[in-house]
Order: sequence, then C-alpha cells, then structure tokens
Amino acid sequence: MLGSTHGTLTTDSRRARVIACGEQPSPAVHGRPAEAGDLDVSGRPLHADVPGLDRFFRPESVAVIGASDAEGRPNTGITRQLLAWAERVGARLHPVHPTRRSVFGIPCSPSVADLPEQVDLAVLLVSDPLPLIEELGAAKVKFAVAFASGFAETGEEGAAAQARLAESVERSGIRLLGPNTNLNAFERFREDLDGPAIALITQSGHQGRPVFALQELGIRLSHWAPTGNEADLETADFVSYFAEQPGIGAIACYIEGLKDGRSFLLAADRAARRGVPVVAVKVGRTETGARTAASHTGKLTGADQVVDAAMRQYGVIRVDTLDELQDTAALLARARAPRADGVVVYSISGGTGAHVADLAAEAGLRLPVLSEARQAELHQWIPGYLNVANPVDNGGHPVGDWRGRKIIDAILDDPEVGVLICPVTGPFPPLSDKLVRDLVDAAEHTDKLVCVVWGSPVGTEAAYRETLLGSSRVATFRTVGNCIAAVRAHLDHRRFVRGYRSPFDEAPRTPSPSFRKAQALMRPGQQLSEHAAKQLLRAYGIRVPREQLVTSAAAAVRAAGLVGYPVVMKASGARIAHKTDLGLVKVGLTSASQVRDAYRELTDIARYEGIPLDGVLVCQMVEAGVETVVGVCHDRLFGPTVTVGLGGVLVEVLRDAAVRVPPFGEEQARDMLSELRGRALLNGVRGRPPADVDALVEVVLRVQRMALELGDAIAELDINPLMVLPRGQGAVALDALAVCR
Amino acid sequence: MLGSTHGTLTTDSRRARVIACGEQPSPAVHGRPAEAGDLDVSGRPLHADVPGLDRFFRPESVAVIGASDAEGRPNTGITRQLLAWAERVGARLHPVHPTRRSVFGIPCSPSVADLPEQVDLAVLLVSDPLPLIEELGAAKVKFAVAFASGFAETGEEGAAAQARLAESVERSGIRLLGPNTNLNAFERFREDLDGPAIALITQSGHQGRPVFALQELGIRLSHWAPTGNEADLETADFVSYFAEQPGIGAIACYIEGLKDGRSFLLAADRAARRGVPVVAVKVGRTETGARTAASHTGKLTGADQVVDAAMRQYGVIRVDTLDELQDTAALLARARAPRADGVVVYSISGGTGAHVADLAAEAGLRLPVLSEARQAELHQWIPGYLNVANPVDNGGHPVGDWRGRKIIDAILDDPEVGVLICPVTGPFPPLSDKLVRDLVDAAEHTDKLVCVVWGSPVGTEAAYRETLLGSSRVATFRTVGNCIAAVRAHLDHRRFVRGYRSPFDEAPRTPSPSFRKAQALMRPGQQLSEHAAKQLLRAYGIRVPREQLVTSAAAAVRAAGLVGYPVVMKASGARIAHKTDLGLVKVGLTSASQVRDAYRELTDIARYEGIPLDGVLVCQMVEAGVETVVGVCHDRLFGPTVTVGLGGVLVEVLRDAAVRVPPFGEEQARDMLSELRGRALLNGVRGRPPADVDALVEVVLRVQRMALELGDAIAELDINPLMVLPRGQGAVALDALAVCR
Repeated sequence: MLGSTHGTLTTDSRRARVIACGEQPSPAVHGRPAEAGDLDVSGRPLHADVPGLDRFFRPESVAVIGASDAEGRPNTGITRQLLAWAERVGARLHPVHPTRRSVFGIPCSPSVADLPEQVDLAVLLVSDPLPLIEELGAAKVKFAVAFASGFAETGEEGAAAQARLAESVERSGIRLLGPNTNLNAFERFREDLDGPAIALITQSGHQGRPVFALQELGIRLSHWAPTGNEADLETADFVSYFAEQPGIGAIACYIEGLKDGRSFLLAADRAARRGVPVVAVKVGRTETGARTAASHTGKLTGADQVVDAAMRQYGVIRVDTLDELQDTAALLARARAPRADGVVVYSISGGTGAHVADLAAEAGLRLPVLSEARQAELHQWIPGYLNVANPVDNGGHPVGDWRGRKIIDAILDDPEVGVLICPVTGPFPPLSDKLVRDLVDAAEHTDKLVCVVWGSPVGTEAAYRETLLGSSRVATFRTVGNCIAAVRAHLDHRRFVRGYRSPFDEAPRTPSPSFRKAQALMRPGQQLSEHAAKQLLRAYGIRVPREQLVTSAAAAVRAAGLVGYPVVMKASGARIAHKTDLGLVKVGLTSASQVRDAYRELTDIARYEGIPLDGVLVCQMVEAGVETVVGVCHDRLFGPTVTVGLGGVLVEVLRDAAVRVPPFGEEQARDMLSELRGRALLNGVRGRPPADVDALVEVVLRVQRMALELGDAIAELDINPLMVLPRGQGAVALDALAVCR
Repeated sequence: MLGSTHGTLTTDSRRARVIACGEQPSPAVHGRPAEAGDLDVSGRPLHADVPGLDRFFRPESVAVIGASDAEGRPNTGITRQLLAWAERVGARLHPVHPTRRSVFGIPCSPSVADLPEQVDLAVLLVSDPLPLIEELGAAKVKFAVAFASGFAETGEEGAAAQARLAESVERSGIRLLGPNTNLNAFERFREDLDGPAIALITQSGHQGRPVFALQELGIRLSHWAPTGNEADLETADFVSYFAEQPGIGAIACYIEGLKDGRSFLLAADRAARRGVPVVAVKVGRTETGARTAASHTGKLTGADQVVDAAMRQYGVIRVDTLDELQDTAALLARARAPRADGVVVYSISGGTGAHVADLAAEAGLRLPVLSEARQAELHQWIPGYLNVANPVDNGGHPVGDWRGRKIIDAILDDPEVGVLICPVTGPFPPLSDKLVRDLVDAAEHTDKLVCVVWGSPVGTEAAYRETLLGSSRVATFRTVGNCIAAVRAHLDHRRFVRGYRSPFDEAPRTPSPSFRKAQALMRPGQQLSEHAAKQLLRAYGIRVPREQLVTSAAAAVRAAGLVGYPVVMKASGARIAHKTDLGLVKVGLTSASQVRDAYRELTDIARYEGIPLDGVLVCQMVEAGVETVVGVCHDRLFGPTVTVGLGGVLVEVLRDAAVRVPPFGEEQARDMLSELRGRALLNGVRGRPPADVDALVEVVLRVQRMALELGDAIAELDINPLMVLPRGQGAVALDALAVCR
C-alpha cells in the first residue's frame, strides 16, 4: 500500500511506504530518552515531553533557505506563499541564498551563519537538507521544515539517508518537520470564525484538504501539521502539543502509519487527561498481519486490531472516511459536555422520525420516552393524534408559527435530554426555513447539543448555506449516518473522559518478586516445554493443576498417587503444539494400570512421530468450567500485547478474542471480556453456573505484568485453555505454550 | 414506532402504524386470487398480475371529486396542482362538486354519474371516500386516489373502516391508491434529463423528497408512487409495474412495512427476471421479534433478519439511509452491465489512492494489479517512481496536460477493468477541473463505469456543479463510502441477475408422497413428543437414529439389544425442552445393567419434576460430527421460514444462523451455510474431516418441502442437533421438537 502527502503542487506521492507499512520493531525507548525515573519496568517511557511548538506555528523570525524570486522556479511560488504567511503571523522573513543579493526586495543572507538574527524557524527549500542541519544547530535555530523528498519513501538507500538526517537533527538540538512535507502548516486560516477549533494533523496533504475546507462551512481550524516522513517530529508530538492549546476543541488526524506505538499512546493519554477528543483515520484495515506464531492467539490479533484497541484504550475515535473525520471532529470540537445522554429525534414527519429513531437506536443511542407531563406540554402545540413520546412528530403546521420555538424549547428543557436531532429531510421553505431559524436561535440559548441533518442532496438552499452554516452552535450534517455516528462518538467520549484514569500513573516501575524466578526459566530463541511454561505462570501466581513430570511408567503411577486420581497424562516436550490432535493427551485415567498403559502409548506415539519428549506430565484433572485463552503476542508497533478469548470453537473458528496494549488497568481487562461475542458463556448459559470472571480478570492482569516485565524477551505466550471455574473457585491454566525471543 | 407519509402540507403523520408494525398474519392467498393452476402446494400464488398502471400515471381524463377554487380551502391548492399536472400530461380534467357550477372556470359535474365522459382516474378530496366507491365502479372509472386520513393509522376503528373500504374497492373493480396518500404522484418531473430513470415508491412522502430532488443533480426520475395505507394498491404492485416499463433503470423504495410478504417476493422476482435493480430502505432494524417459541431457532430469526434474507433472495438491495438510497439507485439506474468486475482507483495523490483502495478492498471489491504491460504504458505519462499498479497515482502534473486523458483511456481500455473510481479529495481548479473534464469526456466514449467522488464538503465548485452533475455518464458521489457501497451493489446485482433462476418456476404444486404420512402425525395445537417429531422427519426422508420407545426397564434392555450398544436413553414426552439440562438424557450406555439403571433414573427425575412421559427412548448412539440446527419458524409476514445454524454454543450463544423464505433452490440452501460465521467448522478444523455438506443441504431442502406442504399447520420445527457426519456419511437428526398450530 502506498500513500502520499500530496497537498500542494509539489509531488510528494513517493513518500508513505516508510510510514504506512514500515512500522518497524519498536525500540523500547524511542527518540529523546526520558529520564531514568520516567521509565516503566520494561524500559518504556511513562510520559513524553510536549514539544514547545509555539514558535513553530507563530515564529517571530523565519529563514527561507533556498528562497527565490526567479520566474518559473518552483521555489519562487513557495517563497511567495511563505512571505504572505510571515506577514499574516507577524514574522520577520530572511531569505538565505549563496549568490542572490535579495529576494522579493528583501536582503538575502549568503548562509545560515550570516543571518541578521537568531531565527525561530528555518524553511529548507534545498534538495538535500542534511548538510545544513549542523549549521542550523550552531545558529540556535529552533525549528526546521524540510520539503525535500527522496528519503525513506524511496527504499533502503533513502531510508539510510533519512536515518543520517535524524541522527544529525538529534545531535543539533533543532526540531525538524519532514522531510517530504509541504506548505500546509503555512496556509491561510480564516480568522473570522468563532467557537473552539479543529487542529489538523495529516500524513498526506491532499487528504487533509476536505478538513481544511470545513472553514468554508463555518468550522474554525487553528493549525495544520503535515508531518511528512517524520524523521523527527511525529504525529504524537503534535497531538501532545495541540492537547494543551487553549481554543482547540478537537484534534483531527489522518494517519497512514505510526512511527512509534508508545509515543502515540502517551500523546493520546495526554489528550484523554485534558479531555480533548482525538478523531483519526488510520489507513490499513486490510493490512494482513504477517506473523507466523506457533500458537493460536498470535493469529487472532492482526496489527489493525491492535491499532483499533490501542486507540479505544485512550478514547481516540477511529473513523474510516474523510467525511466521517470532518463531521465527527466538527461536532466534537464544538459541542459542550452533555448533562444528559438522552437523544430526542424531532421532525415534521412521523416517517422521518421513525426512520431516524430506528437508526439511532440501532447505533446504541438512548432515546428516552418523554414523560407524560412533557408529552402533555408538547400536545398544547402539537395535535393530539401525533406521536410526541420520542421521536417527536410535529406534523408540519406548528413549525410555521410561534408554536415551533415553544416545542423546541420544551424538548431542550427536559432534564433527560442532552441531544436534539432534527432531520430536515426535504426542504419546504415556508416550514423548513422557519424550523431551521428556530433551531439556530434555540441553540444559542442552551448548552445542549442541537443537530440538524440537512437531507436535501442539493445543498444550495439558503436555509442550509446561510442559516445553518452561519451558526456555530448548531451541528449541521448532510447525512443521518454521520450525524448519528458523531453524536455517539461525542457521548461515548465524554463518558470515557469522565471515567478516565491514566494507566501510566499506575504502571509498574520496578520488577515484581516474580521476575527473578521467571527470568531463570527463559531460554532465548526456544519454545519452552509445557511444564516449563506452566512454571512461568506459577511464578506469576497463576494457578496450574498439580502435576509431575515423569520419565518412566513406574514414576507415572507414583505421580498419579500423589496428584490424586483421576489424572490427565500428556506428552511434554519443547516443540509440541496441538497435542490433542496428535493423540498426545489422555484424560480421565482412574487406575494404575490405565496410567501405565497411557505412559506406554504416549511415548510410543512420540517415538513414531519423531517428537523428542522431556517426559510425560501426570496432572490433576480439573473440573469443568468455561474454556478461555489468554496470551501475549508481540506487535511490531506496540511491543507485547495481551489477548483474551473464549476457548474451543469460538477462538479457533470465530477468532473471538480481544486485545489490549499494556499498560492497562482492571477496567480495561473487564472491557476486554465485554467485547467477546460469546461473553454470555461467562455469565452461564443453559443453567450452567456463572464463571469466576474476577479470577479471569486477575489472570489477564498477571499476564500483563509478565508481558511488561519479560518485555521483549517473550515472543509468544499462550494459555490454552485457561479453565475458568464457577464463581468463587478461580481459574486454572490447563496448558501453556511459551516462546522466548 | 410511528411513521408518516408526510410529503406535502397535508398532515398524514398519523398513518404508518398499520404498515410499519401491523404486519398481520399473512393469509395464504392475498388480494385478487390467482387462478387455481397458479398456486403452490401451500396454496400461495406463484405469480402476481401486473396491474396496468399506464392510465394511472398518464390518464386521458381525470375527475377531481371535491374540487375547489374557494380562497383558503386546502382543496383549492390541491385542485390547482392537479390542474397544472393534467395540463402537463395532456389529460382532460373534470371537477366534481354537488353545488359548484365551475371550478377555475371549468364546468363542474354534480356527481360522478354526471361526468361528461368515462374517466381514467378519480382523485378523491373528500373526507370519507367509502360512499363514492360503488358509484366510481358503476361509472367504469379505472383508478382512484384517496387522500383522506383517519383509517388504519388511527387504531382499530380506523382499521375496520379501511377494511370496509378495501372490500368495496374489490367489489367495484376499480384500483385504489391510498387512503392517506398525497400529491406526490402528480409532481412535476424534469423532462430535459436523459439516461435511464429512477422510479420511486414511498410510504412517506417526506422521506421521498431527497430522491425526488436528485433531478436537481441531473438524475432522471420517471414516477413517484406514494402508496399511503395500501388498502388496495401496494408497494409490490408498483414494483411489478415499474419493472416492465422501458426507460426505468432502477426502482427506489422507502418501505415502513410490507402489506403482504408473498406479493412483495413475487414483485421482486419479476424485477429480478427483468434485471431491474430494486433498492430499498426498510425501517425496522430495531424491531424486536415478539414470539415465544419453545425451541431455539425461533429466537434466532428476528423478523428483520427474515426481511433481510427475503430481499437478498431476490436481489433487492437493502440500504439503511436515504443518502445511500439516492446514491445507490442513481448508480444502478444508469450504469450499464459491466464486462469485468475489476475496480481501479485513480487519483492525483498516492495517499488518497491508498486510502480509497483500502476501503474498497475491505468492502469486497476486486482491485486487480494491472499488468506489467499496462503499467509500462502508464509510465509513459506518469513518472516512474509513482505507483501505477492499482491504485494508480498520477502525482498531479500529468493531469494538467494532454497526458491526463491518455491515462484515463489506458485504464479504461484494460479488459480486467470494469469500474474506475476517481476520488477528487481536494479541489485545485488547475488540476481538478481538467481531471473532471477528462473523466466526463472519457465516460462518453466507454461503456465502463466511471465514478467520481467529489470530496470537498463545500459543493459549490463549478467542476462539481457544472461539469460532473452535467454528465449523465459519470456517477458522482460526495462520499467515498457511498461510492464504494453503490459500486459493490451494482457488481453484486449484475452477478445476481446473471445467475438468477426464479424459485417460483420450480416450486412444488402438488403434495409429495410424504405429505399423507406427515399429516397423520400432526396434532393441532400440540407439541409432539420427540419420537413423533422424528417420525415426521422420517416421513420426509430425513435420517434419524435407530430407536425404540419403551415403557419398562425390561423393554429398555430388549430395545438396547436390538438398537445395538452403546445406546443413548432419553425421557420422551410431549412437553420436554432442554432435556440435557434436566438430566433427562443418558449417553454411552454399554450394558444391560446400565440401561436398567438409566431407565429408573430417568423416570424418577420425570416424576420428581412433574413431567408426564410417554416413555423412554432407547436410541442408537451416533458417532461424532458437526452439530447443526435446522428448523422452521412462522414469520408474521412471510409465513413458514427455514433456518439453519451451527449447533452448540454457536447457535445458543452467538445465534449463528441463516434464514430463508420458501420457495428457494439448492443454491440458496448452500448460500445459507456460507453466511454462517462458524462455517469453517463444516470444512473441518484442526484435522477433523470435512462434514457432509451435501447431506446438510439435502436436509434443508427436505425441511423446506415439509414447511411448504405442512404450511401453516406447523408453528415450530426444530432439529437440534442434526449431526452432520464426515463427507459421504450423511446427516442424522438426533433430536427434534415440533409444535403444531
């Protein structure tokens, strides 16, 4: 999959691969190292610095390296745009060129060293920015932007050049945007609009255009960060920065790939703490994970599922298309925190109301039935035979006179109601113009959310263009689908923010006592035997059946006596997956003779199949419960991830599993279970007792601890099955597979 | 949930309930009876007459009963609109009023009997149309339209009035539209547009407005049928009629409820035979089925799932929102049958191309990699470092000159390519205006489908308003999502039509030999015992285990000897569900003593639980296979339906089941299996052998036959589990539950 940042005439389509697909194995610590105390037990940072980008977006002085005013040169157009921008933001602009005396009448410096003052920002219009970096650092330039392409987007050679550039930037102390970026940051933003703004971050300038164009619909934009190849400054830096700026209501992102998983999480965490919604398109729904894991859980969590989970953990709203990005970001930027989550659908037509209410309910919005008293109030103005319970159908006529406004106010006055959705399906000016005016006016006098769906496909009507788009208090949509999705995102996000506790605050910084025991069991590059894998679990306090590893039939019988009949016997070795399919598991053995026979049979099979054994496990037989799977996988972007699924056919055939990126708290572990399609199994179906969900959650958290402490030393861990017993009785890991890196 | 047909100033919001929710038990034969030879074995019609509606839409003469020209009377406005319409379609208009001499200068007849000529259409503006119907019939009026409300939408009394109206209409020989309808059929349609048209059918005038407004975007509309309460003419009648009209490319429907399931299927069948796509919104996604079935399958197929299945069986494209209805109907109306199903995404930005290709692939579109030769051809005009494999990224510049058209033609020339999707994410007139002109021109010279997504949220740009909307050959969208969905619907529909064989042609007309045997087993109003239910299955050639019903321990032992050890024993009685949970099933009994003990235990439990038994079943134990569930449920709208699901946890917890409305062929039975989420189980997972899918399909078809022949006599049938053995070994019904009506 290829991508582009094409946003101006500059062709920058070659970029993208490095970001879209090049989600390299994430180093434990990325970029500027955090201080020692700021690392978690896995060596990953616990918070990221917010880059002080004020002087990037509002510099006092700007140098343009490679400025030109020669007719026909591409740099001339760019210089002209930069001049206009500098004038708008009140920055002094200094052209730099080795031979020109002046550019557009402004005196030219021959080199960076000769600049008349220390500049905040240097815009590099040269084809190779690398040789300039040291010089910029020496001149104490704060920020640089590199437009040049030909770096990581072109292949290995370019990637090497980009790595050299990144190193040089890090040494120099400057912060770099690009390479392979464009002029988007220096666009002309409308300053006549009010209300909280959208800040925009894109890895493709062209894809940011429709969001930028929202200004023409009256939605304020404050910033645009086109991140290009992200040799230094990345999406996460801008998310962190924007989250702290006053006046920014939402951050809209178009992401082809993330440079580093951890820094994205830390930025999203910052936005979540500040309550600033982040709405993102992330390309890569059809990217298929390319791992060859030996266990099941590895196949369950494609990388895109991990991205999805990581975003949800931090309240990032992921959308698929640019129109959803626009509509959702616009609503979330401008809507105030709702006091209630009840949604009322209000329309001049019962058909419209029924249809929209059906869709809203299907999307999970709560449509409370209005109280009898409220309905009686509405029936003062709406004929008695019309439905006003919710949806509220006014039948048309009352909209045309004084009653129209009364109805809206009465709905908004209801304490159950947080959101009013009014679909104007067909414009009929005598009614719909008045309706829209009433809604716009009512929205000025309430802190509740008023949404209008302008259903006409034409979109040139005055009520839409002038009245609705002229209001900064009404959220206007062109499709019911986007309206409902945005309202849902808004209510969900506010709920998320209210309940948010940063997992980074509670992430372990020092190893647990389990760690040393576990370390001793690791065998780098090897798959552990079932017995060793279970010892690993035991080290972290996860219950395993009583069991003994034996190497003779006589020892097996002795072990069975100690473990207690009935027993299960299994071949044990470093490289056995799917034991049951191979006939290497015998269950329900109740006598010494059965144990002896089983020992012989298991070792025979292993010999015939050429499977080396370290012995045979004689295990306690555990009573029935709900079979689950808990595991650890290594994600290229985020490092170790924790997966939980329902065992047997659900996980094997339906891949019914949920994933989370550590660190996460108990709440998220419980949410994982509620994501499972077969979750009802845990509650007990067909008269079976409810399973010990608390014990399952505890295992998930202990496995997370293991994933954090063993960090990148573990390639795969798979507890399958983890038998979750009836409530109060715990959970037991019946089998486990572990692969060390 | 309430609905409305509000489309004009006439308040008709009260309607809807009768249609939206009042999907009454469907009579076996509805409306005008078909001839004896046209009925299937269940007594349902095998084809419906197409009403000759030419003179409804294009009458030569029209009577307006209750016409008025008095200032301030609602009927005056309506009369004025009807006059204008009559003039446009060239109809003679005759006002009818008992006291007026003339209306708008046209001489008035005092009654229908006094009309100067036999009229094609009578528009009834009176508050009670009932007394007029007989008179209209006597005057040989062909069609009537009743605007009056106050019928079934208002409750029981109104429903009775509507039933009387319907009876009178049937006696009279006229065909009636309404009551509770409006002026939509008599709108002014643009006649300056070309290309195939959309015909529109709505049960809410207001909800049809945006589709009607497509004419302002250059999309031709030919008809609008606002069906109102459907006392006589219903949605299905108009679908059948429109399917046979030349010049209609697609039928767009807004449906709140269907009057009769069978007549809708027959109409959809007619459209499928003619290859005319039907696109429909059907409200009711959140309608929860209210049946209290004693078995599992009854709970699996909510009524909405049945509507979904029925539509899919006949190629009806169901969409959720009005913008999807507009965009899908517009594309399907105008796109020619594609010669290839390959889709190419073409853009001036690699980022845009990657994003849209990702979404298109996720939606199931096929994006072929262009051949090396084709890529080389494209690289004549597109720089070598840009991706032209698909998506094709032109990098911007080539669009601006002669190369732009060459590129488009080269893509369209590729035999693999049937559809070109060009997202114009951000308008940049020097490039995008030229790009759009090239696309419009290229579309004129190809029979392939050219789609443009105009991504700017503004929508006032000339390239969009004039160039794109001015073209009847380019399919223009405002959102990528709707474009992809419409293209998918188009390709799927064409594929569907190519493979379509009407199930009505092959539906059984006479009972099978099984029928008489089965009839003898039915016990109206009762639930059959497991033994009797299995005899019913056996009558239809469905395999059941060898088994005997016994009433003593000694007989049980004898039966076990005949059936063959090991055996299963189960309590048998008329009212036992969930036997296993109650401990009323014993499996794997291998000796006479075990059989004796089991007999005692089963009868003890039944006694303690107060469950009357007709005996104990001693059954052959069947080897392992894939557990499935096959059943029959009775749907309010469509009558008996057939369900198949995967047994155990999949059907119980995940409700993983597919449903079909008879009649359907083997192809559909196989499609049911492919809809199951757990379908991989049938292919064999983890080394298990593939299941005998052919045998499962055969059981589904036999159950369908049973559903058709026993028709409405069967309330519920549930084979659970049907054990599907490995390929070649068949399928065995291990347990069955049947409830007679």
